[in-house]
Amino acid sequence: MINITLPDGSVRQYESGVTSLDIAKSISEGLARKVLAASVDGQVWDATRPISKDASLKLLTWTDTDGKNTFWHSSAHLMAEAVESMFPGVKFWVGPPVENGFYYDMDLGDRKMSEEDLAALEKKMNELAKQNNAYLRKEMPKAEAVQYFTDKGDEYKLDLLQNLNDGEITFYTQGAFTDLCRGPHIPNTGFIKAIKLMSIAGAYWKGDEKNKMLTRVYGVTFPSQKELDEYLALLEEAKKRDHRKLGKELGIYTMDDDVGPGLPLWLPNGTVIIEELEKLAKETELAAGYKRVVTPHIAKESMYLTSGHLPYYADSMFPAMEMDGEKYYLKAMNCPHHHKIFDAEPKSYKDLPFRLAEYGTCYRYEQSGELFGLMRVRCLHMNDAHIYCTKEQFYEEFRAVNEMYLKYFKIFGIEKYVMRLSLHSPDKLGKKYVDEPELWKETEALVRDVLVRTNTPFIEVQDEAAFYGPKIDVQIWSIIGREFTLATNQVDFAQGRSFKLHFTNQENKPEIPLIIHRAPLGTHERFIGFLLEHYAGKFPVWLAPVQVKVLPISDKFLDYAKSVSDKLKKADIRSEVDDRNEKIGKKIRDTELMKVPYMLVVGEKEMNEGKVAVRMQGKGDAGVQVVEDFIATISQEISERKS
Amino acid sequence: MINITLPDGSVRQYESGVTSLDIAKSISEGLARKVLAASVDGQVWDATRPISKDASLKLLTWTDTDGKNTFWHSSAHLMAEAVESMFPGVKFWVGPPVENGFYYDMDLGDRKMSEEDLAALEKKMNELAKQNNAYLRKEMPKAEAVQYFTDKGDEYKLDLLQNLNDGEITFYTQGAFTDLCRGPHIPNTGFIKAIKLMSIAGAYWKGDEKNKMLTRVYGVTFPSQKELDEYLALLEEAKKRDHRKLGKELGIYTMDDDVGPGLPLWLPNGTVIIEELEKLAKETELAAGYKRVVTPHIAKESMYLTSGHLPYYADSMFPAMEMDGEKYYLKAMNCPHHHKIFDAEPKSYKDLPFRLAEYGTCYRYEQSGELFGLMRVRCLHMNDAHIYCTKEQFYEEFRAVNEMYLKYFKIFGIEKYVMRLSLHSPDKLGKKYVDEPELWKETEALVRDVLVRTNTPFIEVQDEAAFYGPKIDVQIWSIIGREFTLATNQVDFAQGRSFKLHFTNQENKPEIPLIIHRAPLGTHERFIGFLLEHYAGKFPVWLAPVQVKVLPISDKFLDYAKSVSDKLKKADIRSEVDDRNEKIGKKIRDTELMKVPYMLVVGEKEMNEGKVAVRMQGKGDAGVQVVEDFIATISQEISERKS
Repeated sequence: MINITLPDGSVRQYESGVTSLDIAKSISEGLARKVLAASVDGQVWDATRPISKDASLKLLTWTDTDGKNTFWHSSAHLMAEAVESMFPGVKFWVGPPVENGFYYDMDLGDRKMSEEDLAALEKKMNELAKQNNAYLRKEMPKAEAVQYFTDKGDEYKLDLLQNLNDGEITFYTQGAFTDLCRGPHIPNTGFIKAIKLMSIAGAYWKGDEKNKMLTRVYGVTFPSQKELDEYLALLEEAKKRDHRKLGKELGIYTMDDDVGPGLPLWLPNGTVIIEELEKLAKETELAAGYKRVVTPHIAKESMYLTSGHLPYYADSMFPAMEMDGEKYYLKAMNCPHHHKIFDAEPKSYKDLPFRLAEYGTCYRYEQSGELFGLMRVRCLHMNDAHIYCTKEQFYEEFRAVNEMYLKYFKIFGIEKYVMRLSLHSPDKLGKKYVDEPELWKETEALVRDVLVRTNTPFIEVQDEAAFYGPKIDVQIWSIIGREFTLATNQVDFAQGRSFKLHFTNQENKPEIPLIIHRAPLGTHERFIGFLLEHYAGKFPVWLAPVQVKVLPISDKFLDYAKSVSDKLKKADIRSEVDDRNEKIGKKIRDTELMKVPYMLVVGEKEMNEGKVAVRMQGKGDAGVQVVEDFIATISQEISERKS
Repeated sequence: MINITLPDGSVRQYESGVTSLDIAKSISEGLARKVLAASVDGQVWDATRPISKDASLKLLTWTDTDGKNTFWHSSAHLMAEAVESMFPGVKFWVGPPVENGFYYDMDLGDRKMSEEDLAALEKKMNELAKQNNAYLRKEMPKAEAVQYFTDKGDEYKLDLLQNLNDGEITFYTQGAFTDLCRGPHIPNTGFIKAIKLMSIAGAYWKGDEKNKMLTRVYGVTFPSQKELDEYLALLEEAKKRDHRKLGKELGIYTMDDDVGPGLPLWLPNGTVIIEELEKLAKETELAAGYKRVVTPHIAKESMYLTSGHLPYYADSMFPAMEMDGEKYYLKAMNCPHHHKIFDAEPKSYKDLPFRLAEYGTCYRYEQSGELFGLMRVRCLHMNDAHIYCTKEQFYEEFRAVNEMYLKYFKIFGIEKYVMRLSLHSPDKLGKKYVDEPELWKETEALVRDVLVRTNTPFIEVQDEAAFYGPKIDVQIWSIIGREFTLATNQVDFAQGRSFKLHFTNQENKPEIPLIIHRAPLGTHERFIGFLLEHYAGKFPVWLAPVQVKVLPISDKFLDYAKSVSDKLKKADIRSEVDDRNEKIGKKIRDTELMKVPYMLVVGEKEMNEGKVAVRMQGKGDAGVQVVEDFIATISQEISERKS
């Protein structure tokens, strides 16, 4: 008998050779129907693979990233089977799961695959899926595997084999298709209920343009048709809300070849949003006792050697500038500069917690192929802060930070979010993690406690902490259900030591502070990109670049329109007049397109009575109001930051 | 007879060989007593040098920079005469005028000069000055000059001679001292009425540390003892107000070796001032119809090749970062990025004037020896904006910019200022200046007209414009009378063309806009440095990092003190509580040192009556007030930005 430890800590006994699927069945048939793979002692395995010694086990389903990835990787094999049946002799390179689905790269020889072929392939995949073919794992000696692919004339798989050692080579077969594959796979093809092949693209072998161009087919699959339908509807909606499209239409940002890729220039409308977000952050942080600082965008090499970012993080930093015999780097993070400010004046325990905030602009190198609108950029305006505190203060500080996140979620109508708590791994102390076993245990417990006590939804992940402490990755979902990684929230034991920071404690001795790194609003770039999708460009009034547009019915009422607009401006409302010589219908349509929340139509009657005919964006007529009443209402809405 | 044209355009006739001094005398004896030199056809000459052909003439006095420089350069010769009498055999290198006075570098052989020697030298100089010795000019053939210094064994002057051509070599003699010198000089030593030798320093010959170390003596002289006394008093006051000293004491900024020289880190107190200045600028610019933008700190080489900053300005830029086969540069100015924003969307004449504002951070390379506190830095937060307008709009736009300068001067209590209008030189069109003779005339006239009509004090300088248009350098004086160059205000015809910017004019044709570059508040670095001196760190309430400090008489009143402070904070007043266990006397003294404008002392009586005992910084007791009344008064003072 072997002992199987489940995630809740309970231990069950099974015969040696039991599979994860058997164990799932022993718990419930319903569960077993959902099991896609299993984490056995931290390694993802086929659910059908026998377990022969004591192990800890986590059953993986569609809601687990590893479960989903296994599902999509198995779908890639299913697609390959269909392709092979339609294009005999095709050779395959690799077919990994990706963020939404999977792809497979293939060499079709002289043949071409068309969009029409995709429909036929989908049909074939559906047929094959219904056959419930099991994914069968087979270990193979290297020599035998090489022989197999040499006979087949498959130079791609032979290339893969070069980097594999004898004893770690496995093949997987489902139906008529066999592939060299590390696995794992789902139990059988019947799990794949809904299939959509998305697109065909060209991809150089190994990403090198000197190599042959292979054919890449992207697809996505789901355990039910309903989920696929929802996903496709989401894609359709996301396309309408594409932040790059809206960013251009609404004058939010632009890119320029002479400035460089990944370096957005913020246009006036985008800058209004930036300034409103900064205002919100500054108000919130002031109330929470933060002090603001401003630091340069560069520092000497020595700073990043101390912080440890060099040489380890060098690939993500911009290259050095050599000056006066020294190397200078653009900052990729604000923490080292803040540490220097902490250190500029001596500190005692009475000065702690010491909270430094800055909307610091950092520069990070991303491959140009990875750049994507505002989502992946090289210039990041970060809602950054660092809190220096004692161990005793840590719980309360961390709780307050967490509360700030939740406050922001509420303001922006973010209803779905998850905190991903990344923990250390005790066996890697002193290697991957700073060697402070007690501090790890303590702070992990404190962080968990904050999340539990505040009912914050979170998941725990082992062995994914930062070097210097536990870390929370904050994931949020836009109103249409797309997931975004917003920000991280980190505990840091190590940098205080590297930078020789200390405060004088109550015993009059030097002590190293704990540091919390936090950025609840992430970067302007990513957050505004998110908001563009989230609001479909229809920003709530407090964020809208233009809050009110006054539309005179004809030039006769232009002066009155201007006087109304001036009154609004005096009340700090962003107002414009449409002074074009256009019909009122066109004025309304154009203002709707620019997604201005309020339109005030003014004509003879309104002018004579000192009133305005109010129209709301997307909702139409909202009645005639006295100007001052309208100002009072909208001012209230703005000051409340109503969404 | 020759015709002499005076600055007012009047023409007078004199015998050929007349001197500027003669001409001055012909106007008034009083004037003649003040003439130090003269500008003859734009060249600075001895006032005693004969003029033998028609010329335009400007008599130079102490109030002209060139007059002052001549005075100080002649003083350097006077000092050399005194040194030679005390240290026979001394050899001299160069002795130029500097910002405040002059120096002379000399080789004393094995001898050393002490601080005591300075007093003796001063005495000797006064004696020699009273002799009213004339400065006599003598032209000399190169061969003869070489022979003279070879005989004297003076390797320094022989070195200078190497770079001079025959026919341009002159000697000057006053009293017993003769020197190789281009001149010009004042008429005689009697003009020098007050002398102060400031310091002795070492200076490598030609600034090269491989060369011999020479002795450099700094001095300053004035036409009256009163002016010298005032100058020394100013220096004394400026020392107390040194922005580097105050910057440290008041927690404004810090420098750090690992960040790099010339790169200030703004501490929390300094950041409050930055944010108040930005708020003022943003309010002012919003009201003036500017739109705000945010641009990256870097751009590709191609951008600066287009703007013409590369290769000409390369020495003042940070070195390139090479990435993806491209060179990227930190921006040294914001204009190119703003031009790209202008160009991002098509413009018509209806969109103009188009005013883009940004507190952009620029990086400029300065030699490390040139760096000085906040005054000379490598990182500049610039109150920048660019106005794109038609020729017809130019006058009004420039007037509005000028008005904005004056508004700021008023807010900051800057009573003395001068605009230095730099004009082009018609003979350098197409070389030093963009070849648009009509635009030069037009815009120079418009700019002058604005300055005249608004009674703005200004001086005109020929041949010092920017390449692309006339330029105004704004000079201001701090309350103690020290001069600062604050900002420039420039007209630009050229960059619109280089960047191919255009708008569609009323005739539906593309037209290049005029561009105004302006930065009334200069940079945070220089302006805050100026304000520290100007206010001696005693910032007006609206700018003060901490506006109110509440001082409980003992711990018994700490809760009440905190409640008062909370009320203040709710009213957006920056308030702190002195919660230390110290005597009230010490609390007051320490708060005075930090130059907090208001102290509120609270004890038994104040607590019981809901009042506070108000003390004003440097002024003491200001009576007991109800908390709400105090809040009303200070809030008014803040919102008015009272100085």
